[in-house]
Amino acid sequence: MKIGLDAMGGDFAPDATIDGAVDALGKLPSGDRLVLIGDNGRIREKLASMNVEPSLFDIVPATQVIEMSDHPARAFSQKKDSSIAVGFGMLKSGLIDGFASAGNTGAMLVGASYTVNVIPGVFRPALVALIPNLNGSSSVILDVGINPDSKPDVLLQYGVLGTVYARYVLGIKEPSVGLLNIGEEETKGTSAVKAAYELLRESGDIIFRGNVEGHHLFTDEMTDVIVCDGFVGNVVLKMAEKFYAVARSRGIRDSFFDRLNFEVVGGTPVVGINENVVVGHGISNRTAIMNMMLQTSDVVHADLARKIKEAIGG
Amino acid sequence: MKIGLDAMGGDFAPDATIDGAVDALGKLPSGDRLVLIGDNGRIREKLASMNVEPSLFDIVPATQVIEMSDHPARAFSQKKDSSIAVGFGMLKSGLIDGFASAGNTGAMLVGASYTVNVIPGVFRPALVALIPNLNGSSSVILDVGINPDSKPDVLLQYGVLGTVYARYVLGIKEPSVGLLNIGEEETKGTSAVKAAYELLRESGDIIFRGNVEGHHLFTDEMTDVIVCDGFVGNVVLKMAEKFYAVARSRGIRDSFFDRLNFEVVGGTPVVGINENVVVGHGISNRTAIMNMMLQTSDVVHADLARKIKEAIGG
Repeated sequence: MKIGLDAMGGDFAPDATIDGAVDALGKLPSGDRLVLIGDNGRIREKLASMNVEPSLFDIVPATQVIEMSDHPARAFSQKKDSSIAVGFGMLKSGLIDGFASAGNTGAMLVGASYTVNVIPGVFRPALVALIPNLNGSSSVILDVGINPDSKPDVLLQYGVLGTVYARYVLGIKEPSVGLLNIGEEETKGTSAVKAAYELLRESGDIIFRGNVEGHHLFTDEMTDVIVCDGFVGNVVLKMAEKFYAVARSRGIRDSFFDRLNFEVVGGTPVVGINENVVVGHGISNRTAIMNMMLQTSDVVHADLARKIKEAIGG
Repeated sequence: MKIGLDAMGGDFAPDATIDGAVDALGKLPSGDRLVLIGDNGRIREKLASMNVEPSLFDIVPATQVIEMSDHPARAFSQKKDSSIAVGFGMLKSGLIDGFASAGNTGAMLVGASYTVNVIPGVFRPALVALIPNLNGSSSVILDVGINPDSKPDVLLQYGVLGTVYARYVLGIKEPSVGLLNIGEEETKGTSAVKAAYELLRESGDIIFRGNVEGHHLFTDEMTDVIVCDGFVGNVVLKMAEKFYAVARSRGIRDSFFDRLNFEVVGGTPVVGINENVVVGHGISNRTAIMNMMLQTSDVVHADLARKIKEAIGG
């Protein structure tokens, strides 16, 4: 498989991205090849400084960079030779099987929706995060940031998208699905969540286990998939990541808290689009980039985008 | 001041409630008197077993109990001699200055809205929680559970209610207010949150500092007041409390994580109603009840309900 990396994406690019790509080399399945997209001169210079043979990678030049501060849609359409635009072009043409970037998230979502396109039948793409549970397993939570206002039919579909993710990427045969809510009863929550509860319960496509509350997150009482709107999902994810940082800053080393470190997951896949795309944190360091590439490889080998297309019937 | 306690409220009542009330005795300001409301025989029996003089309390008999599983509105109207109904009656008649219960939260909210009544001009009452920051201070977050769907004008008013709370109960002269959101920019969030941002920015009644994200919560980057709808606020609060329990279960003792323990705060005041009411966790133990009574005393001494009435102009 060919896996594209935006070598210019992220606060510490291209140093951290290339460091991370080099670290990923020995850990990827044989046959996977990393494609570094970005400033040709800087990429080769960095590899030379590391005494790494450039032929271990495909290197695809891109002369422009979409900065973190750029307006996503405008930059994407104007900077046609940016690493992100080139990456999406390659993805659409089938030159790479997956694309990852720790760069401008908005521009990544523009590329996902307008170059790669949303799968017919998918209401809204979603960002998927993996969060750890006490017993060592991980759960899939979505959406964590694209759709702050999620309508009931969108929440229902997140249940389907998350089930496909858990089944094919995590290898869970019969993933259970929970709805993030503020009580156990089905009469709890916002009007959208209450209506979603009904839809999830009636759905034959998923295994619905009812409501999940804030104190179930990260514990053994979690379902394999947690459905929520992109507002509360984003707050939960950022808060959990911060608890890791706080624990660390206070000298706490603990195997559970350590798993809240976003660096060990690497990125958040975009689901519901025609190709496999993973978005990383802007502050990604070497380790985060390495893990983002391993995660992108997992998603590519699971053939996630196609599996979702089949599930949606598009 | 006279501070009422539902002696029958909570999973471990009346043992834990009376234990907690006895513990609170020595810590309350002189002049405060606790009023135990509930089963006269059981209260006196329990005090006798502790060798505590019953005259240290006012004891007000109530022959019925609203159970945790009771339907809140129905139970409140049918069980007229329940400890919760009697407590609200006393509050309304001015026989007590504040009322706290770890019992059926729904029934407490029914009493708050239909016996004590909402302050004219208040759109929706809110549950206020205190959450710890790394630097040792606490912030006020509301709503944490009453209104999952909060409209923009309701969110704006939470800013005012929270400011009054922070000023008079916590003694912060010029409390800063933040809006819980999923990005720094004012264009982020749900449609309700985006509209609330505009209203908060234009308000002359509060000191608005813009958006607060999930990773700012519990850190030194917090505002004194955080405004959010009751859905995300509830998830944040339950998740934080669980992180304490998880840390504890893993043998982690840390002064910051220890402050996430709900027992050290005690309860969540209901603001926006005509009297001072505090709701506790059903699982409250002796320590939680003691702290809930100290917190209720703080709220009563701050004259919170009246201060809010003045701020709202009701």
